[in-house]
Amino acid sequence: MLEELKKKVYEANMLLPKYKLITFTWGNVSEVDRESGLFVIKPSGVDYDKLRPEDMVVMDLNGNKVEGDYNPSTDTPTHLELYNAFPAIGGVVHTHSTHAVAWAQAGKDIPCYGTTHADYFYGNIPCVRNLTAEEIDEAYEKNTGKSIIEAFKDRDPMHCPGAVCKNHGPFTWGKDAFEAVHNAVVLEEVAKMNILTLTINPQVQPAPQSMQDKHFLRKHGPNAYYGQGNR
Amino acid sequence: MLEELKKKVYEANMLLPKYKLITFTWGNVSEVDRESGLFVIKPSGVDYDKLRPEDMVVMDLNGNKVEGDYNPSTDTPTHLELYNAFPAIGGVVHTHSTHAVAWAQAGKDIPCYGTTHADYFYGNIPCVRNLTAEEIDEAYEKNTGKSIIEAFKDRDPMHCPGAVCKNHGPFTWGKDAFEAVHNAVVLEEVAKMNILTLTINPQVQPAPQSMQDKHFLRKHGPNAYYGQGNR
Amino acid sequence: MLEELKKKVYEANMLLPKYKLITFTWGNVSEVDRESGLFVIKPSGVDYDKLRPEDMVVMDLNGNKVEGDYNPSTDTPTHLELYNAFPAIGGVVHTHSTHAVAWAQAGKDIPCYGTTHADYFYGNIPCVRNLTAEEIDEAYEKNTGKSIIEAFKDRDPMHCPGAVCKNHGPFTWGKDAFEAVHNAVVLEEVAKMNILTLTINPQVQPAPQSMQDKHFLRKHGPNAYYGQGNR
Amino acid sequence: MLEELKKKVYEANMLLPKYKLITFTWGNVSEVDRESGLFVIKPSGVDYDKLRPEDMVVMDLNGNKVEGDYNPSTDTPTHLELYNAFPAIGGVVHTHSTHAVAWAQAGKDIPCYGTTHADYFYGNIPCVRNLTAEEIDEAYEKNTGKSIIEAFKDRDPMHCPGAVCKNHGPFTWGKDAFEAVHNAVVLEEVAKMNILTLTINPQVQPAPQSMQDKHFLRKHGPNAYYGQGNR
Repeated sequence: MLEELKKKVYEANMLLPKYKLITFTWGNVSEVDRESGLFVIKPSGVDYDKLRPEDMVVMDLNGNKVEGDYNPSTDTPTHLELYNAFPAIGGVVHTHSTHAVAWAQAGKDIPCYGTTHADYFYGNIPCVRNLTAEEIDEAYEKNTGKSIIEAFKDRDPMHCPGAVCKNHGPFTWGKDAFEAVHNAVVLEEVAKMNILTLTINPQVQPAPQSMQDKHFLRKHGPNAYYGQGNR
Repeated sequence: MLEELKKKVYEANMLLPKYKLITFTWGNVSEVDRESGLFVIKPSGVDYDKLRPEDMVVMDLNGNKVEGDYNPSTDTPTHLELYNAFPAIGGVVHTHSTHAVAWAQAGKDIPCYGTTHADYFYGNIPCVRNLTAEEIDEAYEKNTGKSIIEAFKDRDPMHCPGAVCKNHGPFTWGKDAFEAVHNAVVLEEVAKMNILTLTINPQVQPAPQSMQDKHFLRKHGPNAYYGQGNR
Repeated sequence: MLEELKKKVYEANMLLPKYKLITFTWGNVSEVDRESGLFVIKPSGVDYDKLRPEDMVVMDLNGNKVEGDYNPSTDTPTHLELYNAFPAIGGVVHTHSTHAVAWAQAGKDIPCYGTTHADYFYGNIPCVRNLTAEEIDEAYEKNTGKSIIEAFKDRDPMHCPGAVCKNHGPFTWGKDAFEAVHNAVVLEEVAKMNILTLTINPQVQPAPQSMQDKHFLRKHGPNAYYGQGNR
Repeated sequence: MLEELKKKVYEANMLLPKYKLITFTWGNVSEVDRESGLFVIKPSGVDYDKLRPEDMVVMDLNGNKVEGDYNPSTDTPTHLELYNAFPAIGGVVHTHSTHAVAWAQAGKDIPCYGTTHADYFYGNIPCVRNLTAEEIDEAYEKNTGKSIIEAFKDRDPMHCPGAVCKNHGPFTWGKDAFEAVHNAVVLEEVAKMNILTLTINPQVQPAPQSMQDKHFLRKHGPNAYYGQGNR
């Protein structure tokens, strides 16, 4: 069942250690198949060097496990909320990557200080509010998803494919699992660059809006001209 | 004698260079066999690339060497004190990992700024006081152990499996040698994340208590639901 | 056509991941053949692990593509401006290397704090001004080149073989593609050292002028005595 | 001539890239043979991946080249001064390692904040003063050696086997080339730890003297008890 997708989600998960986004099992990648209404996600707490494609867990978009020997990632309800609220996304990633977590712990949006950021994220990468004690008690992982969605109520999630949850860490997304991982790498790199920027100049201001517009739009939208036209 | 345990302690020691927790020989791992009342520890000052399982030293819980061609780690009396005071622990690790040492040198407890910390350590990771000149003269390594135990007089050491000794470095523990190493990796990663967090926001506050409770308890205790139920 | 040069430019591009100057495809190297008036540059947005020598694109110094299956790097017009304005240079590199970008985002010249810098760059490495909205609209990449040239109107570009463009990142150059990459590595390393220097001493001053003179001149110019005389 | 020593000095030089202490050719190691009054040093500006044992240069303690196809390192006169002034040392290392350079550029002694430092360096690691313009003009590298010696006029160089030269970088030494490299690794690691310490606590004070005494003396001198007694 969904063997191709399980293989792809497995491979996307294996990119997390390759890009040094995770320690131990602290991360997970999923991808949704919109046609069947199912998504595939990493099992919870299984070592990366023991993980196999057939260990991936198949879920439906109501949150029921459809196939799999293992429990799905504890963060599965967060992925589920994002798939249901953001119809344009196909893949979701969660990590505890070091510099993105630092922004989450600092409780600050990641400002756009330059073109590395603007090439992928249009405007601030939001730091999503803490859940209330009630929201935590009721359904922690599900409500984490809802809090992210709330932060995007006036933004296109494909124009800012990620966020950091306060005192927790980053979630990113994309058209599929690979693009979501790609965006997780970018977010971590930008998070690092921006901490170093603050060290040099604590009064730094965001990049000029005209520059942010230029860089985002030369890679996205109808007039994009970066790459070979097939990105 | 204890051949299985020597092999395990050897392997746990070899994880220290793998996880980049040490430079040269600056670290040691031990594990206790509660049944026989013996523990196995790395020899002092032997290069990691020359270390062999049979070089491990066997000690009893009175601090006598029972078997081994080498001198045990100079930190052996610290391990001994911890085994005698904390009956729930099975393994102990000491390193000079870079970011944990920075907190030790700064003389500050490591606050809980987020879930990466809360998943493993419940509350502040304490910075243990300096020894007095008298304590140093009398029995430096033994009194180092006693000072750690003093810092845990009102805390369950399994709820906070590590500490940093002021101006020195981290000790961690766990149910066995592997878990103690695992916790040493977590402590180093959290120490790094938290320094970066301070760089972004020098006025940062600890994570909300409800969030700390949630994350610690979803991985530990009777209602844990992270992983596959066998952690 | 220019097969030797395509191979060399390919190899110089492959040094960018080797020296960890890039993430994904965020960089490009070119070299000019002054005799034929042609330069060779990396294609846009092609993964480094798929790149081959024959994928390099040949351009003339009027900005026309002369040979190549792919689109050239989007930064090609910047390279072109530099070749036309700086007759002594033979190679150009652009990256988003982490610490150099941090200075670009901070909007600060990189001061000469020591001999590592002075061995290669004589004086401040300039942070080049932002383009105006009009310059961006008109011809972003070409005007980026012009803004760099403007910053060197009173300086010899071979005495300071690089700059950081505000809110963007570094460009470096040299007598050929390899030297340009070499200078990109130096700039990144100096950028890192100088951030750490500021962390220790926020009031740090530049290195004494006599020391800067000594180090630059022992490696460059008629009285150089570093190396084996063939550098 | 001195084939064994050339091989050893070659191997010690190759440890510099292994321990990530250098970029390109920015470092050199030498060792003296006190009996013959000769020392062996790396040639100037030769790539590490092309270096061979037979490329090492033999010098006498008057600064004359005795054997070798290449020019010796430009820093040779600094090594020479140290060998002539410090009879107990057998090996010398110079690098531009990142964090040690940061302290040199910041113009600050490296304080003893903890036991990692105290295990090897007894007290502050001095930041050696800048040379005057006259000293630079007259004999830059020789006078660099003299300035280091001046900083040790009231200290035993074996109790503090290294220094950082202001706006330049670190020199370390030891009983032979390998120990000098070992100390270069320690100095770089301590330099890094101490920058991180300052980030956490800008008002940090040095470690208590009793602790510094204990750690230095348990590894050095007649009552040392670290290791296997043959260090």
